[in-house]
Amino acid sequence: MSSIQMSARDELLQRFLDAASTGDVQKVSLMISQSKDLLNQRGEQGWSALMLAARNGHYDVAKVLLSNGCDTSVTNRSGQTALDVALFWGHRHIARLLSSDADHDLRQLLPNRGVEEPDIYFNREILDRMSDKRNDAEWLAAKRVAPETVFLLFHALNPLVCSGADDEVEEVRLCKLRSAAVQELLINSQTVEVFLGVEKQEEDDGQLAWFALSTEDDPTQLLKHKHHNSFFLQGAMPGLLRLSDDDAGVVAQARSVLAWHSRYRFCPTCGSDTKVEEGGYKRTCLRAGCKSLQGVHNTCYPRVDPVVIMLVLHPDGNHCLLGRKKIFPPGMFSCLAGFVEPGETLETAVRREVREESGVQVGPVQYLSCQAWPMPSCLMIGCHCVATTTDIKVDQNEIEEARWFTRQQVMDALVKDKRAVFIMPPRQAIAHYLLKHWIGCNANL
Amino acid sequence: MSSIQMSARDELLQRFLDAASTGDVQKVSLMISQSKDLLNQRGEQGWSALMLAARNGHYDVAKVLLSNGCDTSVTNRSGQTALDVALFWGHRHIARLLSSDADHDLRQLLPNRGVEEPDIYFNREILDRMSDKRNDAEWLAAKRVAPETVFLLFHALNPLVCSGADDEVEEVRLCKLRSAAVQELLINSQTVEVFLGVEKQEEDDGQLAWFALSTEDDPTQLLKHKHHNSFFLQGAMPGLLRLSDDDAGVVAQARSVLAWHSRYRFCPTCGSDTKVEEGGYKRTCLRAGCKSLQGVHNTCYPRVDPVVIMLVLHPDGNHCLLGRKKIFPPGMFSCLAGFVEPGETLETAVRREVREESGVQVGPVQYLSCQAWPMPSCLMIGCHCVATTTDIKVDQNEIEEARWFTRQQVMDALVKDKRAVFIMPPRQAIAHYLLKHWIGCNANL
Ligand SMILES: [Zn+2]
Ligand SMILES: [Zn+2]
Repeated sequence: MSSIQMSARDELLQRFLDAASTGDVQKVSLMISQSKDLLNQRGEQGWSALMLAARNGHYDVAKVLLSNGCDTSVTNRSGQTALDVALFWGHRHIARLLSSDADHDLRQLLPNRGVEEPDIYFNREILDRMSDKRNDAEWLAAKRVAPETVFLLFHALNPLVCSGADDEVEEVRLCKLRSAAVQELLINSQTVEVFLGVEKQEEDDGQLAWFALSTEDDPTQLLKHKHHNSFFLQGAMPGLLRLSDDDAGVVAQARSVLAWHSRYRFCPTCGSDTKVEEGGYKRTCLRAGCKSLQGVHNTCYPRVDPVVIMLVLHPDGNHCLLGRKKIFPPGMFSCLAGFVEPGETLETAVRREVREESGVQVGPVQYLSCQAWPMPSCLMIGCHCVATTTDIKVDQNEIEEARWFTRQQVMDALVKDKRAVFIMPPRQAIAHYLLKHWIGCNANL
Repeated sequence: MSSIQMSARDELLQRFLDAASTGDVQKVSLMISQSKDLLNQRGEQGWSALMLAARNGHYDVAKVLLSNGCDTSVTNRSGQTALDVALFWGHRHIARLLSSDADHDLRQLLPNRGVEEPDIYFNREILDRMSDKRNDAEWLAAKRVAPETVFLLFHALNPLVCSGADDEVEEVRLCKLRSAAVQELLINSQTVEVFLGVEKQEEDDGQLAWFALSTEDDPTQLLKHKHHNSFFLQGAMPGLLRLSDDDAGVVAQARSVLAWHSRYRFCPTCGSDTKVEEGGYKRTCLRAGCKSLQGVHNTCYPRVDPVVIMLVLHPDGNHCLLGRKKIFPPGMFSCLAGFVEPGETLETAVRREVREESGVQVGPVQYLSCQAWPMPSCLMIGCHCVATTTDIKVDQNEIEEARWFTRQQVMDALVKDKRAVFIMPPRQAIAHYLLKHWIGCNANL
């Protein structure tokens, strides 16, 4: 519009918007005092004075506008509020000013971040999966017969291990068999074979490959070479927690894939039998014409189940919520946890699970770290979150008890003090790390 | 040990450790200058001077010890280094001093956190799932016939929607049918029914329930009530991106569960037919004696596939890595992404996928936010990460091109400037948010 067509009213508004846009805080103040209804008026493209101040980073102007009762919910023609504008243009101090973030204070209770990735049990990767080799039948065949290749053996999902003593505490080692020892198993059609990867090494010419072999029959007769003190590690929990960190990482991969083979032999789309492909990472339906053969479907690939596991912090910042399941060892309490459902985010799943299991409402959620958990194939996603209510009402189907514990009580349990009122989850579980990290980040102890 | 048995040497060490423990920096310095071999010696329980300083928060003592070449890798009898001790007791300034964190500088490039949970498409939840009602057959039956209950209809996974015009741009609304309109579908054994939840409302007596109904046959003949301008939304992409935020959240849940029913009708463990239970959230094998009936198995429950999607930042902090797949619209580039494999963490999956697809090595990874993606049932886990190498070598099977884009180029694409050299992923995709957040957090624009 030309200046000739502009009414006095339009001109006044334009001067006001210009003042906000250029950061002339005196002029803005003066004009509001003379004509308060300028505050929320909008000019070109629906931009208000507050949006223009937010756009150009004029904190003082935004403050004056707000102190005069300016409406923060107004949007421009692109549907942006002043807060959207401030965030988009990176003016965080103005964004904070504009944000009526009810969660802000609660969020301060969450442990600080920026920590290094912790070395959690089951997470270490000593192998490079080299997924491009899964389709290279020739390469796989050569590795299968190479004398240095490592074979791990599983029976009913239990790994073959070696140990000085078959007690329930001592660390055990995975038995690394060579090609010659497993020849009969390799040619047995009942054996499931999974290519795990090659050892990570700088300047490696040899590329030492690892495979996992699994059979439901007792394989001891089929083994060419008997190992001293070797046995199949019984009982996933706590058996699988007796490995070294290196071995635990390999077992996390191998056992998850083998568990899928053991339960997903048939095509879920049509019920037919399947064949194994891609180095053990695919099962393809044998019935011509099956829908699963048209396009790419998750029915053909191993399953990974995302699980949220969360330490719920009390709004006072000095208690956390732990629960116990009937199957836990006596005295043990741990973090609440549950499967992520279809259509949920991690944060939504955290809130739903805590509400369902304990009746407690949760506000802000913060991801900390995750853990592979091969029983059978979970991805444990560890979070801290802050409760907005504190009354506990336990769902007895899920857990038998839930309680708020003080920081000192967690501390006592962590160092196994004689005053401890509960037992921590084992150090191999991510729940242990969530608790330890909360204490460690806030301790004035 | 009694003081009488203590050798002069032991006494000297004890005085040195006491000085470190109490923070007497002068004494510590003096004693080292007189007897350098005290530095790494250890007393009770294997604690060194550095550990004691770390335990009690004496930053200056730790600094003096380090400047004299103290060994940071020594551990006490609990296997803790001084860094472990500092972290455990919350002395972050000492932890920083002790940590030789090569990733530290790279980590500074990651966008700041503590942002509010963004309102991403598909993530909004207007229903309370009330999973405890899934086993309450009586309650479900009452809701099924209640006249106010809402039924959403899907055919071949496409929702029935209403719109003024069947063009490809306009927003469409889910058709909310009532019990009377879907009676024939409800009694048809081919119809799959999923209980979605009740509307979230304060002080709600009525608890308005929602169900999704799905049929593979053309259901238009079975509908009692024909809606004006209603049709089944064809083509998941971009069809499903035309919904309102409220409707998109409901579709994320409903379509994921229905997609599972459409592909998992048969028991993957034995190939037999299954029956639907728990309000549409369970399929149970019909063959007595099937292994899947002993204990709890994931074969019976809907599948959720975790996917990592990441914006890779250049170590210079001013470029990011984007790729394009052949199926993308012309000119569009987006974040790299891939399925999490069994036994992997999110961080490991990010590094593997980026390396496989682009040849670029990744260091620190930071979770930002996630998104439900019901095609068919993915959980998109959005991360920023920082590259440690910058040469690109594309895997042509995965993507056709990958390129480093400058911050200004992303900015131009975001505001659809005429200078833009590429097209952003649509605002409904979490890749759009990852890009926008990176720009927004760092912009001095
Ligand atoms: Zn099939
Ligand atoms: Zn079965």
